[in-house]
Amino acid sequence: METLRIMGVDPGIAIVGVGVVDKTGNSYREIFHDAITTPAHTPIERRLMDIHLGLGALIEKYKPDAISIEELFFNNNAKTVIAVGQARGVILLAAMEAGVPIFEYTPLQVKQALTGYGRAEKKQIQQMMKAMLGLESIPKPDDVADALAIAVCHGNSIRFNQSALSTLMKGGIVK
Amino acid sequence: METLRIMGVDPGIAIVGVGVVDKTGNSYREIFHDAITTPAHTPIERRLMDIHLGLGALIEKYKPDAISIEELFFNNNAKTVIAVGQARGVILLAAMEAGVPIFEYTPLQVKQALTGYGRAEKKQIQQMMKAMLGLESIPKPDDVADALAIAVCHGNSIRFNQSALSTLMKGGIVK
Repeated sequence: METLRIMGVDPGIAIVGVGVVDKTGNSYREIFHDAITTPAHTPIERRLMDIHLGLGALIEKYKPDAISIEELFFNNNAKTVIAVGQARGVILLAAMEAGVPIFEYTPLQVKQALTGYGRAEKKQIQQMMKAMLGLESIPKPDDVADALAIAVCHGNSIRFNQSALSTLMKGGIVK
Repeated sequence: METLRIMGVDPGIAIVGVGVVDKTGNSYREIFHDAITTPAHTPIERRLMDIHLGLGALIEKYKPDAISIEELFFNNNAKTVIAVGQARGVILLAAMEAGVPIFEYTPLQVKQALTGYGRAEKKQIQQMMKAMLGLESIPKPDDVADALAIAVCHGNSIRFNQSALSTLMKGGIVK
């Protein structure tokens, strides 16, 4: 059975969560999870380079077939949106440079793909990751657990897409 | 007399304005101005790579001593802020990778450094660039004229800083 390796990335400037899973059939195996962190009080360009180099090295090491990344949403914290946007820029660049296809999901899509509805609590998603991937504890910080959830979200979306496609090909209706 | 080469950059995802000036004493000479453009309806990661490669090539060609870039401000267009933030990320990365020091200025600082007050009209700044640099016409699009203004802003800020420094060293008061 074919195995798909997915790298999930939760973008940020101080902490970039990264989680790699292998999906075989409908089951997942955790391969790697950690955070790329950059020190505060460091020039932004230096932090961006650390993120770019750090993620580039992880992509080269784990050779994912797909990179799944959370979409950035506008919130009330202007500084955060701009800083995370800049970090996201160099993350997308690292993926593009490595030639790995990128898939973007909203936080709502991540929750829905994992639990079937959009109102799941963060804690619930984290517990689910721990159980589903057989981890000894909930990955810390939250960004790392989120990155694993984003990776699994892509895996589940593919499954749904494939089953939708197969329904369509049989002349059925996709709900 | 020493010459300082400054590259000004007006960040964007569709258009990145770039202007290079040489500053000798208190006079400026235009060396280059143009826009890096990326096609719409193209994956964002592709556009970010075009910007990163394009700016990297210009930095390598013109070897600026300093890169001056406009600070990104929060506005009501969420999509724009996120897109420009991502572009800004790969622009800062290209500068950092080339080892060129980066200086950031707000639009207000650019206006003040050029005209002495913050209420100058965009058109006025553009006319000033044309006259100051002896250009045949106002550079188009606006982003390119802005990039030249951002470059000159850095040059003028250095002048002010140096004269402030020299006043301080003489035991004077910096206003």
